[in-house]
Amino acid sequence: MKRLGILFVISGPSGAGKGTVLGKLRSEVENLSISVSATTRNPRNGEANGVHYLFCSKDKFKEMIDNNEFLEYINKFDNYYGTPKAPVEQLLNEGKDVVLEIETMGAANVRQMFPNAVLIFITPKSFDELKRRLDKRGSENPKDRAARLEIAKTELDSMTQYDYIAVNNDVRSCINTLKAIISAERTKMARNPELINTLTSRDN
Amino acid sequence: MKRLGILFVISGPSGAGKGTVLGKLRSEVENLSISVSATTRNPRNGEANGVHYLFCSKDKFKEMIDNNEFLEYINKFDNYYGTPKAPVEQLLNEGKDVVLEIETMGAANVRQMFPNAVLIFITPKSFDELKRRLDKRGSENPKDRAARLEIAKTELDSMTQYDYIAVNNDVRSCINTLKAIISAERTKMARNPELINTLTSRDN
Repeated sequence: MKRLGILFVISGPSGAGKGTVLGKLRSEVENLSISVSATTRNPRNGEANGVHYLFCSKDKFKEMIDNNEFLEYINKFDNYYGTPKAPVEQLLNEGKDVVLEIETMGAANVRQMFPNAVLIFITPKSFDELKRRLDKRGSENPKDRAARLEIAKTELDSMTQYDYIAVNNDVRSCINTLKAIISAERTKMARNPELINTLTSRDN
Repeated sequence: MKRLGILFVISGPSGAGKGTVLGKLRSEVENLSISVSATTRNPRNGEANGVHYLFCSKDKFKEMIDNNEFLEYINKFDNYYGTPKAPVEQLLNEGKDVVLEIETMGAANVRQMFPNAVLIFITPKSFDELKRRLDKRGSENPKDRAARLEIAKTELDSMTQYDYIAVNNDVRSCINTLKAIISAERTKMARNPELINTLTSRDN
């Protein structure tokens, strides 16, 4: 029995610092692929196609929806965000672990399709801290900011569906928490059929 | 809702190196108590009462059995080994995490009493490696060695009841695996009711 890859789903409200943490994970953990979401929104400063997102047109995105090519997708602020299914399934079948960064609603869908997925919620230490971080972001107009705060509340309210909660108060400490979760999940008994087989089948 | 301590149960065949690994855990992980088992066997060289075991007479041990003072106990090679219940329960209620090192049979009993316990199996990388390690132990007569090998087989055969499997090929790497498991379990959503409460109850 070949070891299948582990699917890690990471969510958390805007302002939780998911992007920074995932960037570090990518370079510090072996055999881990960070899935790149597709989106129809415009690239922000410094965002590269294929690295931060697969940027595509609304027509192309809708065509992919029609062809059932997404694990999950949502429409937010009049733009689509989604996880293309094929590359994730291929990596898992090759035994590679994959990280998805998605919204809480998408996470519930992914859990249904992959019951063994590991759901991790990244959050600031308190709601006040979250508001403070959103206030410091100067890039948005007040209406968008209010909407984002409402979404953050909704996301916090659905966090109990997650397996783990990682507080991002200090970035290094949060990355270490995620690395510990990944490392622990890799040593789960149920994920190591080959090792069990090696230890229990013997001639003597 | 106060956070309860986590009960970690560690088992593995003789020769897996549990003792060395636990000694390191004791000094490297904060807020972790290693439960000390009671036994009626004689101390080996370098073993101190209250540190490696609580050494006691058979009469005293049987009296404790009669008073239902053990979480689990077994009789092995005509000696008793057991985990006194009271200190473990007190530590868990104080929110402290506790490690028990016990046999696989005892682990099943503990799981029944503490369904949220975390069961970790430490093992050499292969059965051949295990036999090699047992052969290198000069302290036992051939009859005891054969009996110990049979017990090791039984223990390996019941390892699938454990949550995690930690291979002890390199001591440092095995300790790091255990530290990752402890760290990950501490961030399990279900173990952090206070944090959930902080993030979801808000006035605004």
